[in-house]
Formats: sequence, structure tokens, C-alpha cells
Amino acid sequence: VLGVTGDSDALHHALARIVGAEHVRPAGASSPWVRDATISRGVHGRADAAVLPGSPAEVAEVVAWCYRHDVPIVPRGGGTGYAGGAVPIDGGVVVALERLRAVRELSPLQWRMHAEAGLTTAHVARLCRENGMLFAPDPGAAEQSQLGGNIATNAGGPHTFKYGVTGAWVTGLEAVIAPGELITIGGPVRKDVSGYDIRALLAGSEGTLGIITAAWLKLLPAPEARLPIAAAFAGHRQGCDVVAAIMGSGLVPAAIEYLDGGALRVAAAPFPAPLPPGAGFMVIAEADGTTAQARALRAELTELLCEEAVAVHAPQDAAGIDALWRWRSGVALAVTARRGGKVSEDIAVPLDRLAEAIEEVVEIAARHGLEGCSWGHAGDGNVHATFAVDRSAAELDAADRAADELFALALRLGGTISGEHGIGMLKRAALQHQFSPPVLGLQAAIRLAFDPKGLFNPGKKVPLPGD
Amino acid sequence: VLGVTGDSDALHHALARIVGAEHVRPAGASSPWVRDATISRGVHGRADAAVLPGSPAEVAEVVAWCYRHDVPIVPRGGGTGYAGGAVPIDGGVVVALERLRAVRELSPLQWRMHAEAGLTTAHVARLCRENGMLFAPDPGAAEQSQLGGNIATNAGGPHTFKYGVTGAWVTGLEAVIAPGELITIGGPVRKDVSGYDIRALLAGSEGTLGIITAAWLKLLPAPEARLPIAAAFAGHRQGCDVVAAIMGSGLVPAAIEYLDGGALRVAAAPFPAPLPPGAGFMVIAEADGTTAQARALRAELTELLCEEAVAVHAPQDAAGIDALWRWRSGVALAVTARRGGKVSEDIAVPLDRLAEAIEEVVEIAARHGLEGCSWGHAGDGNVHATFAVDRSAAELDAADRAADELFALALRLGGTISGEHGIGMLKRAALQHQFSPPVLGLQAAIRLAFDPKGLFNPGKKVPLPGD
Repeated sequence: VLGVTGDSDALHHALARIVGAEHVRPAGASSPWVRDATISRGVHGRADAAVLPGSPAEVAEVVAWCYRHDVPIVPRGGGTGYAGGAVPIDGGVVVALERLRAVRELSPLQWRMHAEAGLTTAHVARLCRENGMLFAPDPGAAEQSQLGGNIATNAGGPHTFKYGVTGAWVTGLEAVIAPGELITIGGPVRKDVSGYDIRALLAGSEGTLGIITAAWLKLLPAPEARLPIAAAFAGHRQGCDVVAAIMGSGLVPAAIEYLDGGALRVAAAPFPAPLPPGAGFMVIAEADGTTAQARALRAELTELLCEEAVAVHAPQDAAGIDALWRWRSGVALAVTARRGGKVSEDIAVPLDRLAEAIEEVVEIAARHGLEGCSWGHAGDGNVHATFAVDRSAAELDAADRAADELFALALRLGGTISGEHGIGMLKRAALQHQFSPPVLGLQAAIRLAFDPKGLFNPGKKVPLPGD
Repeated sequence: VLGVTGDSDALHHALARIVGAEHVRPAGASSPWVRDATISRGVHGRADAAVLPGSPAEVAEVVAWCYRHDVPIVPRGGGTGYAGGAVPIDGGVVVALERLRAVRELSPLQWRMHAEAGLTTAHVARLCRENGMLFAPDPGAAEQSQLGGNIATNAGGPHTFKYGVTGAWVTGLEAVIAPGELITIGGPVRKDVSGYDIRALLAGSEGTLGIITAAWLKLLPAPEARLPIAAAFAGHRQGCDVVAAIMGSGLVPAAIEYLDGGALRVAAAPFPAPLPPGAGFMVIAEADGTTAQARALRAELTELLCEEAVAVHAPQDAAGIDALWRWRSGVALAVTARRGGKVSEDIAVPLDRLAEAIEEVVEIAARHGLEGCSWGHAGDGNVHATFAVDRSAAELDAADRAADELFALALRLGGTISGEHGIGMLKRAALQHQFSPPVLGLQAAIRLAFDPKGLFNPGKKVPLPGD
């Protein structure tokens, strides 16, 4: 499927004419444009060039040129993905959105924002906060990841439990589709059933259907207070029982996170409070709303958590609350630091199978001679199952085999091979087990409906016939 | 595109072999199977038969037979649509889902339910309520409309303002697609980014991509209290100012509804409290949550509403609250009763254009010699713009021309021609103005990807090339 990009000079010249020579970059194997967060697994690629268009119109021109010349197009946001979605496989043009950073409108009174794809997650969050608003999605790597990438992967995060994934907050999209058309679908309207929901289709399409250049976002008034409670338990049985008790209580926390024993051990040192030696599992639940609401909810959650907890940490002030969430964000890094690398997948399972999934991650790892642990979004059944590796070929290979067992586990429990990270290039084989042949056929047909030449991010997401 | 169904006996015989003779019904022009809520506009159709399959497998067999014989397939839920989506245009088989009524699983502790498409909206709501849970979508006609139809139209309702549309609460679908395959996508998992979001595509597809036979639903713990406040204002300016004040206040009501002067006049008599003669607009805001939360929010909302209100009605007990919402549900009927018929559309506009839209509905009506009024979901900018008619050809014709102006108005204000009701057969011409040619091309390509023969609900939703 990959196009022939033999004449590198002609390609660079043509792209330079569109975006300016200074915005065409070499994209060889050692460049930053051919890797993402999977680099710790040794994944990288090769492209003929990276371009940084300065406007949606330039994105359309670049796509038009590539489409005319059968050159693969690899859209790129912050490059923080865990599935290789932004990694060019073998040639083509990386289209990086980082120069598209305009905030076209921010209307707190109408609970909405119109923003370009290259704005970082943190920037969007900050702008909203400064205006008393909340853009609910809160995926990790907020300082690097970008709005367009968040939408293209339908990113989640801890607060997805209460607020839903990124796509739920997008009411309109501007995007470039084949063969180089700049289109707008939806807009600053909160409801729209006019056509098929192309917004929802582009959300999570991982750059295979088009390039998102801007989005209309739905905002909420920022909750006055966010009060997390971290509770440590002897083990995962007690912790999962408490998660079930919270779900059955009629309360609606903003987030219900967990760390299993292995993850907690590795991340324990910088935890912002003393942890007793018997701590073998952690649940973090958060209450939000007005201060009065959040306090009342925190009190009820604390009561549930305390029944079995060996320790509870409920910071009262902003600094303490920030420190707890910052620590939670750092878990992935701490686990990586443990042995120098990690292979991390993100299966999601029905809530009543959460304890089983958490147990089996460790067992699967052990069967392959690896250290396994998990953490993640307990309330969504979303398990970041992780195998620590030293990045040797032998361990990476063992981890890949362990990951295959993990995917089989997810499907056996009635779940999915990816709750958040997407399919990228790494999970395409597993997809064939999750979907029946008619569903795989439908997925391929949708892809071809958008991209008859198969030039958008080839080798990623759903396979095309002949892939 | 319509198939040739010349041999009626062969068709009835083949269908009877699949579903049993007693579940194949005549579907002539006078039968209930060829009309929906647009019958008051004189819209009806003709089909060769209606079938009532008793299982998803039977639905698949019916579709397989029709697809093999080039017979159009018209899926049908409760038949309460306002756009003619369930009305067969000229022949084919109506596939009614009403016998698919199994509740396959109801797991309040996991906040989820697995239910078949033919269950009524009211039945689903009741089951949830009896188990302490809430299925958030609350479209009208709850006793007739069905779950499958709600999903196929991505139905909204008053509480969509806080909780989102029906599709937001669907985590998995079972459906029959061409050429007769029973597929499952998603399931009892709260997050899934494995493939393109086919669930989101089927939601709102109005039976043109396949037939939904069952759905996995996400539930919420039922809010302990729901406290509405109805406030009457002198006119729409004051009312819209208050809606804007609520949006800007940082409060999050569960619903923000409105009735304009015309709608309020027609519906005033059974209003469950005295209305002063100066009442020319009404806003209904609702506070929900725990009793303490809802009371606190109601107090704040009441304060905002009272600034300009000429009257406020805030029922305190369950009977009074039910009476208020029952009255609100009856507005459409009251307006219909006024002159015997109505032509009602459901444009949605950006919130800052709501007052303009409400004004212009009345002006457009007047230009066509009609009585016009509107009501709807103020917080979502969703305007049920309505022209009362006596059902004479002249008035229906005038109303159709007025509706065209209304669609132009929606687009001029940056909105959409349909916030809730969909496109069906009645709004296809207007769609061509809302979508650019590349977007129309994409919509058609998606349709053909699912249904290469164009047999699913022909003549509805997005046009195919040659339509």
C-alpha cells in the first residue's frame, strides 16, 4: 500500500513550496518524527520528510499533493501514544500539527471553545481553568500531548469515569480528508443528528481517516472542589471489593483509580504520606462539585474506603491534592525506571471481572519470566497491564508474547484489547481476534470510504484487504 | 433504488417461513405500519408486508432474504418519529422490532443493562428506577417509542442538557447488517477504542445502515431528588436573558427548558399553578442530585429566575413535580389540538443565537400566514419550531415553505437543521444546504460501505448518488 517516494528532492521541493522550506524537516530513523512513547519498546520508523503546516489550508495542500503522488500521510500530534500510531512505518510524509495553535473562540458563557489541533492538552486545560471552565478529558502527558491527538485517539484519563472520553466533548470538527479537502462537520451546537456522526468516527480513528485541524469543544463550569482520597489495602481482593461497594452505593465519584501491589511497591517512595508495610493495593476515589457537595461525598466515600483500608490519605489543601495527583501521574515513569523499560497495554474489562484481570496480569508475567503489575481506571475496568523489561531483545520478546496472552484474557473476560491507547501498529493482530469477519469487513469498508488509496497512516488501526 | 417486489405471494410465503405466518402483516396505505407521527402532516407510505421477527436470528434471516431478492428493508421501532424515518416510501418490507423485548441482563451494581431493541422507553426507565438506577435519555412518547428507535435516532430529551444524547449511553450494540449478518460491537465495557466507532455511527443512522436488535446500556445511580422550577416571564428577551444568566452562573442544572409566548398561551389552561395574564414566556430549570444538593441548587436557580420572573412555580412534592413534567410533555399535543395539525421541526442553534431563533420562528410563520410558536431545550439551543395547521393542502404547503425558511435560519445562525428528530424522508433537501459536497460525498460513501445495494430504508437520511 505504501506509495513510492523515490524522488526525495522533488518531494522536499514540493512540500517547501506549500509550507516554507524551514517547515520541512528530515525524518530519518534518528529523528524525533519517527518515534513515540513506544520507543522504549524499540519501535521506530522512517519517513521521507516531516512537514509542519502553518494553517489548515496548508494541511489540505500537503494532503492534496501527497494524495496525487501516492505518498503516505502520517498525522502526528504530541507523539505520546503507546501503540505506535504516529510512527511512520516505511516512508511517506509525517504531518505534524504543532504549529496549529490558535484559540479561535473561547466562550465561557456558552460553555464552548473552538481550538486548533496543535494546542497541548495542558494549554487547553489551563485556558479553561482561567475562565472558570473545565474541559473534562484529562489524559496523561498533558504538557506534550495535543488536542488533535487526543481526539484522534479518543483519549481517556482518570476522570473519564464520571465525564466520558474526549469524543464526548467534541461538537464539531474541522479536518482534511482525501483527496485534500478541508471539511467542517458540526460546530458550536450541542446536539446535531443531521448526518451520520462523522465526528464520532474521526474520534479514535488514529489518523487513518483524515487529519483533524480544529475542534469545537463542549465545556463545563469548573467544579469548585476536587477532593481525592487515597486508601491502601492489604491486597487486590479487598481493594476490588471496595470498588464494587462504591459502585453499589449510589454515589458518583469523579474518578476511581487503582494501583496493584507491584505498581504500589515501585511507586511507593514518593507517595506524599506514610504507607504502612502491609499496603498491597491502593484505591484513589475523588469527590467533586461545590465545596459542600464534594465534602459530603468525600465523607461518604471515606466511610466506604475505611472499612477495609490499612491507611487512608485525604489531603485537604490544594497543594496536597495536587501532590497526590502528580504522584498518580508519575506511576508510569516509576515503573519504567524500575528496569529501564516497560511494555504496557490497556485492556478494559467488565467491572465484575476487574479482580480477575488484575490477578492474571501478574500470573501471565510470571509465566513469561517477567515482573508484571497493573494500575489504572478501576471504575472503567481499564487496566494498564505492564511488564517491566530491561529492553533486551529477549525480554521485549517475552513481553510481546505476554501481551498476546493479555489480549486473549481481555476477550475471554468480555472486554476489549484497548480502552484508551488505540490499535496503532502494535495491536493489529489482536484486533482480528476481537472482531468477527463481518465487523472487520465493515471496518475496512469504512476506511476505504474515506481513503480509497489507503494513504492515511498505512499499516495502522484496522487492516485493509491485502494488508 | 427500490427493489422489485412483484411477486407478493412468494414474498409473504418466504417471510412466513422465517417468522411464522401470524407475524407477517399486510402493510397497505391504511395499515399502521406505513405511518409515524408525520401522519398529521399527511405523510404515509406503502409496503409489501410488515414482519415482526421473534429473535435477532430471525431479523438476520429476514434481512438476508430481502437482500438476496433486492427488497427494501424499513426498520421500525415505536413509530413516533417526526421525520418520516419509519415510513416505507414505495414497497419493501417493514421490519418491526416490537417482539424483541428481552432484558438480557440488568446489573445495577455494575451500572449496566443489556436490553433488546423492542422494549419501550418507559419500560427501560421503569426497570432502572425500580433498581435504583437511571437510564439518562428521556425522549418524548416514552410509552410508544422503543429503545432501538431511540438509538437509531440518537434521541435527546429535556435532560440531554446535563446527561447527553442516547448514543452517549450505549457501550455495545447487536445489529443486523447487510447482507444479513448478526454482528456485535462493544459490550459491557465502559471504554473501547479498538476499531472505528461503529456504535456511534449506528446511533442516529435512522435504519439506513442496519437494524439494531439489542444494546448494552450504561446506567447511573438514580439521583435522589429532581426539583424543577417553572418561571414565567413577560417575554422571550427576559426569558433568554435568564437562560444566559444560568449558563454563566457556574451552576449545572439537569435541564433548561422553555416555552415561547405562543406555546405557553396554547398550553396554559392545564398548567398546574396560576399563571398571571402577563406571562409571555416560560423557563423550566431542574436541579437534581442528593436531596441536599438538589435543594441547594434549586435555591440558587430560583434566585436567578426570580430576578425577572412574573411568576414562579416550584413544586415540592413528587405529585407536583410529576404534574409539572407531565404538563411539559403535553405541550406538543396541546399545540396540535389548537388547529388539528402541526408541522414541527427541531433546529438547534448556538446558545447565543437562541433569542433570535425564537423570534424568527414567529416572523417566518407570519410571512406564510401561519401561527408559529416554539418550545424546547433552551440549554441545548434546541428549538421545536412549530406551525399550527388545519391540515388543509394550502396550510400544509405553506408550512412546508415556512420550514424551508426555518432550515435556512438554522444554518445562517450556525446551527443544524435537526437537533433531535433526524432527517428521515422530510429533510433530505435541506441536508444539501447544511453539508458541503465533500461531506455529502463522505456520508454517501459511508452508507454504501454498509449497504452496497442501498436497500436499508431507501429514500431516507443521506442521499446516495443518483437519488
